[in-house]
Amino acid sequence: MSLLTVGSVAFDAIETPFGKTDKIIGGAGTFIALASSFFHKNQKIVAVVGDDFPISMIDILRERGIDTEGLQVKKGEKTFFWSGRYHNDMNSRDTLITELNVLEHFDPIIPPSYQETAFLMLGNLSPQVQKLVIDRLDNRPKLVAMDTMNFWMDIALDALKETISMVDVLIINDEEARQLSGEYSLVKASKAIRNLGPKYLIIKKGEHGALLFHGDDIFFAPALPLEDVFDPTGAGDTFAGGFMGYLAATNDVSFENMKRAIIAGSALASFCVEKFGTERLLEISHDDIDERIRQFEMLTDFSMLKTT
Amino acid sequence: MSLLTVGSVAFDAIETPFGKTDKIIGGAGTFIALASSFFHKNQKIVAVVGDDFPISMIDILRERGIDTEGLQVKKGEKTFFWSGRYHNDMNSRDTLITELNVLEHFDPIIPPSYQETAFLMLGNLSPQVQKLVIDRLDNRPKLVAMDTMNFWMDIALDALKETISMVDVLIINDEEARQLSGEYSLVKASKAIRNLGPKYLIIKKGEHGALLFHGDDIFFAPALPLEDVFDPTGAGDTFAGGFMGYLAATNDVSFENMKRAIIAGSALASFCVEKFGTERLLEISHDDIDERIRQFEMLTDFSMLKTT
Repeated sequence: MSLLTVGSVAFDAIETPFGKTDKIIGGAGTFIALASSFFHKNQKIVAVVGDDFPISMIDILRERGIDTEGLQVKKGEKTFFWSGRYHNDMNSRDTLITELNVLEHFDPIIPPSYQETAFLMLGNLSPQVQKLVIDRLDNRPKLVAMDTMNFWMDIALDALKETISMVDVLIINDEEARQLSGEYSLVKASKAIRNLGPKYLIIKKGEHGALLFHGDDIFFAPALPLEDVFDPTGAGDTFAGGFMGYLAATNDVSFENMKRAIIAGSALASFCVEKFGTERLLEISHDDIDERIRQFEMLTDFSMLKTT
Repeated sequence: MSLLTVGSVAFDAIETPFGKTDKIIGGAGTFIALASSFFHKNQKIVAVVGDDFPISMIDILRERGIDTEGLQVKKGEKTFFWSGRYHNDMNSRDTLITELNVLEHFDPIIPPSYQETAFLMLGNLSPQVQKLVIDRLDNRPKLVAMDTMNFWMDIALDALKETISMVDVLIINDEEARQLSGEYSLVKASKAIRNLGPKYLIIKKGEHGALLFHGDDIFFAPALPLEDVFDPTGAGDTFAGGFMGYLAATNDVSFENMKRAIIAGSALASFCVEKFGTERLLEISHDDIDERIRQFEMLTDFSMLKTT
């Protein structure tokens, strides 16, 4: 089953209490595609970079089974660049620089060979671009998931709600869920947001785990308690990529399987934060992931005795 | 196995975004004893009240199997009174009034019939009083657990550390764990705190659940996602009471059984917050608790397939 990821491929420069980087590879599309590739090989990406973007990184994506025909390289233009500084608690950050560059007029062209897409993951981009992708696919995919952020709620709420109405799974964080719904209780927020269209809602809570809502069912996945979070950049995208890669690989969109997919995504995200950018994702093996998934199993496993 | 609870029995006046109360029954000892009583009947309490405290409430404790011989009633004196106002997020609160009254010179007298205590739960009190209780027991209990709060870290850190060094299980919240250890990472904090003495550490994270640390093992229990949190007062004490009541009832202090005890405590705490003060705890039945424990089981239950 083919998985299509649409999202930014970018340069990041990151400062954390542990150190700082020069321009390194980042972008939601990059993290999503790399994460998915651990579970699923039939994968394509639609994105745009400038000709300052290293061919070697595009090769790395290809080696991991990611079809990059839809990755546009704009001659004479520069790749999207974001720079940010994390606070001491690693939960909040300041954006220092945002240079949209090629992303400013991004036209998400879908190559004809991409048309048979069963799973579509829309990384954080303008809701208009996200909608264009859905509109340009001849057949609606079996499952469409999207990420977004508070920025679009601030400046393009109506367009955002329209795109949200077209997807099956919305993946946002707790602050965004509260802003989008106007509800503080995440249970109430989940109802209000699912009334906009998506049958499934995933609320990411960072170090506090993630919640999956569907009908009256709720699943809670913990985050792995870590000694250090080195760099949280891309953790949410890695989570989403692991989630969609697992679903596409198993071709099963039941609630039970979504639980497993969330654990798979959480395991990958727990690696992502251990080093800067994509560094850790490029190191780990399948055995590492299986071992970490076992840690997640042990973390919440209990068998209750009858209380009398 | 006998369980002894030492903690405040008090009056509270509470304001939340949902309403406010006049003086109602509160206090850590009250919540702990009521919660434990759902699982365990062989229970005793050491506490102090003034003669303004209603006999009817003492009768309710007795009806639930709580031996109140150690509950001192001071003639002509007034019961400890706390008043607080919760903010809109229900996670933070301002203390409006604290009248120590009988608690100011509380001497925790242990009746001779209380000496055979196997489980001791020290609710939040001055660390000196908590230590006195341990010192006054002829035989060290099988398991000693204590709660405390940042107030004692601010004004009596050395005495607090001494008492902490004498217990098996320390139960505190995430902010307190960070303050006590000077570490932001809860994994690092848990190591620093357990170096003070306790073999087990429970870190309560409110709506984000609770963590149990022992050796290299970590167990994570979620909090039940709720539509509304009506009044969080006493939720942490209810959690601790459910935890110790379950352990005493099963007389099993293994890590595996502590996991179950934490789920039992979490289930009770999820009821506590549904109404003001002890109101909800006085309504619920054992069937209600079993049903809620099943909800906890469903919330985190998943069975992973092999990822390839």
